[in-house]
Amino acid sequence: MNLEDSTALQFDTPYMVIDFNQSLKNMKKVQSFADQHGKTLRPHSKTHKIPLFSKRQISLGAVGVCVQKVSEAEVMFDGGVEDILISNEVVTGIKTDRIADLASRGCRIKVAVDSEVGMSSLNESAREVGKEIDVIIDVDLGMDRCGILPDDFPGFLKKSSGYSNLTVYGIMAYDGNVADESRSERSRKVASEVETLTKLCKDYERINGEPQTVSVGATSTYDLWAEYDIITELQPGTYVYYDRRTTEYGASTMDEIAMGVVGTVMSKTHSNHAVIDAGYKSTSIDNGRYPILIMPSGDTAPVTSMSEEHTVCSDANQLKIGDRVLLLPSHACTTTDQWDKAAIFGLNEKPGTIEIKGRGMRE
Amino acid sequence: MNLEDSTALQFDTPYMVIDFNQSLKNMKKVQSFADQHGKTLRPHSKTHKIPLFSKRQISLGAVGVCVQKVSEAEVMFDGGVEDILISNEVVTGIKTDRIADLASRGCRIKVAVDSEVGMSSLNESAREVGKEIDVIIDVDLGMDRCGILPDDFPGFLKKSSGYSNLTVYGIMAYDGNVADESRSERSRKVASEVETLTKLCKDYERINGEPQTVSVGATSTYDLWAEYDIITELQPGTYVYYDRRTTEYGASTMDEIAMGVVGTVMSKTHSNHAVIDAGYKSTSIDNGRYPILIMPSGDTAPVTSMSEEHTVCSDANQLKIGDRVLLLPSHACTTTDQWDKAAIFGLNEKPGTIEIKGRGMRE
Repeated sequence: MNLEDSTALQFDTPYMVIDFNQSLKNMKKVQSFADQHGKTLRPHSKTHKIPLFSKRQISLGAVGVCVQKVSEAEVMFDGGVEDILISNEVVTGIKTDRIADLASRGCRIKVAVDSEVGMSSLNESAREVGKEIDVIIDVDLGMDRCGILPDDFPGFLKKSSGYSNLTVYGIMAYDGNVADESRSERSRKVASEVETLTKLCKDYERINGEPQTVSVGATSTYDLWAEYDIITELQPGTYVYYDRRTTEYGASTMDEIAMGVVGTVMSKTHSNHAVIDAGYKSTSIDNGRYPILIMPSGDTAPVTSMSEEHTVCSDANQLKIGDRVLLLPSHACTTTDQWDKAAIFGLNEKPGTIEIKGRGMRE
Repeated sequence: MNLEDSTALQFDTPYMVIDFNQSLKNMKKVQSFADQHGKTLRPHSKTHKIPLFSKRQISLGAVGVCVQKVSEAEVMFDGGVEDILISNEVVTGIKTDRIADLASRGCRIKVAVDSEVGMSSLNESAREVGKEIDVIIDVDLGMDRCGILPDDFPGFLKKSSGYSNLTVYGIMAYDGNVADESRSERSRKVASEVETLTKLCKDYERINGEPQTVSVGATSTYDLWAEYDIITELQPGTYVYYDRRTTEYGASTMDEIAMGVVGTVMSKTHSNHAVIDAGYKSTSIDNGRYPILIMPSGDTAPVTSMSEEHTVCSDANQLKIGDRVLLLPSHACTTTDQWDKAAIFGLNEKPGTIEIKGRGMRE
């Protein structure tokens, strides 16, 4: 991400900034990888939360998008995205009615399931509007969160095939838990998870015919999963921007990071200590890392503490009050989630702002 | 906070919920404490970010509010709050112009200062609109963030008195750093900080006459500071709701917590393990603690992990899919900062929603 272009924009600080050209390069790189490996790409939209970005990903070859929330699906559909997988469980009638409404309006909506309560509610909502809705069975390969345990899979699959307005179309597995390992360790884990998935695919074939879709993979693992024939679809999200974390675990270079937050040095009362006007309300700390701080010179400076509205930098001899610095967040998704809009350059002739329409979509 | 009232509201989950009656009790308790000790109360509004709440605090006796950002000041002034201290440094011309504009519009705006750059810019903006703006000198008593170091205070005070359109009216010190200590340790630290402040007040008196205001104190320390005569003003914020952290360090009881997030059990595929549809995009984790999870029975259940949209609870035999649970966040301020609106009961005859107008005000 270009330091000069990012920090020179005529916006008050702090502001979130997107380098669209770099983001486009990232989109093309991963699409090209998926194409070469014969896999469908269904990028997760929770990283950018911007329908225009999803539509660009689709125009480059993606089959559709993932979202986590019904309200995110509504934002994406209203923004022109027609093929949407809610890659998360939905169990209440309010939400399944909203999903059925999306189906009625022409959205090719798909939903992850791992409970009879969820399927029963979704089936009822779909029946009421006279639609069939595609569901994908979420399995837990070790994330220890949602998803059917492998031993329970055959029994659950049998039950899930019995709903008149639901069509089971495959298996989904999310493994965000392996991101922070070394690449060789991630590779070993994926291989082990593929063994389990292969067994589940055999169960599936026996009970329900060949699964149409086997959908997996975060930015940390999609390239490892792509090596295996049973996988049909990849779901990475963060690659659209990358971040400090993906760079630390080797999925990206510093140059590939396409999103940042610009702040101003607002206080410098201690020797060799500068305070920036952006804290963890402006850039994520949820994975335990501070952002990378880039000074006007292009050098990085160590971050020693953060609070709600402040980032404290030690070894700040180069910095003076009023200087703008670029923070490269540890986690792009939760940083984006803080901002209603972002500055963007490279999208149109002149830099401008773009609305982050999916921000705050919690339901 | 009442579990039944909180979880029974007709809103889709997750939603943030406020028990207004409890919040009002908290407002009255702290106002009464300040009154009894002869101190001015200037509550920080960043906890609730709602002008209606600030106006209620003022109608109960508060002198005005604190905010951290110019954009927050604008939201508060537009919402009817007239006396506002930006208890944070402002250094750029864009922002000081906006402050001068607030002054022009009749806002009794005050600003913390710790640099000549900031004062010079503020003075210029004030001069352009023909106004005088009150500034308070921020001193660092150990927080190691913004603020003049005690040794540099006399020199800085002399300089700050030389701006034609600025009026220095006192000393401010924020000590959020001592919150997580025992009460006796906090008491010891406040006593030590009072020693330093007393010396600074003498410097102040010698150079500039008696300080009009000495403004200090978070929810963790305001009652300790109130014991000392040199202190004139207290700035607690979190007490309006309290949270898990204030309860753990002994500033509140569980019953006094007036804000929570309601979620639904959305997955239960593992024995004795339930997944809630609210993660750390819905409730804060910035101080390293998970929220307290209260089940429909009123019992608490242990939280074992959180991710963006999920809270995983172990020992969840009591919970079934579809159950609503109440999460009491670790940090009220950063939880509120996630929500554009909240459900509220006790404010009007029927429960409703209230807009969190200051959410996302970063500049």
